[in-house]
Amino acid sequence: MRTRNKPWADDFLKEQKEVVVHHPFHHKNKWKDVFGNDHPIHIEIGSGKGQFIAGMAKQHSDINFVGIEMAKSIIITAVQKVLETEQKNVRLINENAKDVRDIFGENEVDKIYLNFSDPWPKSRHEKRRLTYPAFLEQYKNILKKNGEIVLKTDNRKLFEYSLVRFSKFGMMLEEVALDLHDLHDPENVMTEYEQRFSNKGQPIYRCRARSRFS
Amino acid sequence: MRTRNKPWADDFLKEQKEVVVHHPFHHKNKWKDVFGNDHPIHIEIGSGKGQFIAGMAKQHSDINFVGIEMAKSIIITAVQKVLETEQKNVRLINENAKDVRDIFGENEVDKIYLNFSDPWPKSRHEKRRLTYPAFLEQYKNILKKNGEIVLKTDNRKLFEYSLVRFSKFGMMLEEVALDLHDLHDPENVMTEYEQRFSNKGQPIYRCRARSRFS
Repeated sequence: MRTRNKPWADDFLKEQKEVVVHHPFHHKNKWKDVFGNDHPIHIEIGSGKGQFIAGMAKQHSDINFVGIEMAKSIIITAVQKVLETEQKNVRLINENAKDVRDIFGENEVDKIYLNFSDPWPKSRHEKRRLTYPAFLEQYKNILKKNGEIVLKTDNRKLFEYSLVRFSKFGMMLEEVALDLHDLHDPENVMTEYEQRFSNKGQPIYRCRARSRFS
Repeated sequence: MRTRNKPWADDFLKEQKEVVVHHPFHHKNKWKDVFGNDHPIHIEIGSGKGQFIAGMAKQHSDINFVGIEMAKSIIITAVQKVLETEQKNVRLINENAKDVRDIFGENEVDKIYLNFSDPWPKSRHEKRRLTYPAFLEQYKNILKKNGEIVLKTDNRKLFEYSLVRFSKFGMMLEEVALDLHDLHDPENVMTEYEQRFSNKGQPIYRCRARSRFS
């Protein structure tokens, strides 16, 4: 599913101004104006086809969600899903989130979701993992005091790595679940990927790490 | 295997003065005198039949090991295993280690091993889990600065619980392994229990938590 197979994608995204934010850097420190209220802001880095963020937005209408997804061919599905919900508390950004500090100001975000991020298993690609310290440094900057990072993955090595990284970065583990679906958490919203892997009987890992930065 | 079936157990333990320490409370702050050197001291709480501590002592002759096991009927097997190694760097204690601060002084211990501790799965028994905060408080007291707790278990819930507890207690996770034997760590010494469960193909969890107390 490459963009060139969807020549209408650009036009489609441009038109969906109620969901897609086209110049996200302009809204740094001013996301409350985008939503027209001062509800907490939760972001998802790598929103994929949007099942998670659309489901969360329905479940929590008192929270503002911002999803970032760099793949144009994929984010259009997310836009369609959000449109179907008719929720007003979601925005999507089609950017490569190399540095979220360009998009959000200090202490502007209450929670960051990292769902089924690329595990980058090779050591020489460690810097690309979304829980590499340089990324945690970015998250620390935009997260409120006592803000949370919630990570879900089916990749054991990425999960092990991330637990150690969160801990060494001075974050506090509030929850570690080594078989999320065994918990039967009624509030868990599955991503497309999660649903597929869970149906195969593979365990899904989740952790919640709280910042202790003042 | 109850003690009453081994009437010779008491006599046997009394005789093994080179391995069994009969009045451990007398040696608080003076374990270097027991070993006759000032090598680092590593302790195992719940040594069982001693395969781990005997194996570790052989592998690390420059470290002094102290194993604590409350079941008399079980510790005699550990004593026999240690005698077989002919190692001089192991001592065993037949006590219920309700408070290790009675046995070890402040900063006297470099490392604490918790191997396949009773998971006490019921919430009302949480206080009995060896990673309950009241126990961590004891460990903190006897551990040197930058000392480590190494936990191994096959019990998922105990592992999840312990990771969160270590983290909330301000300890730093140096390692998290969700399938220890997949790591092929050549230095891993298996306990009897570990060997049995691993042979069945069940994953073994291990973590190393470092104290950051000054």
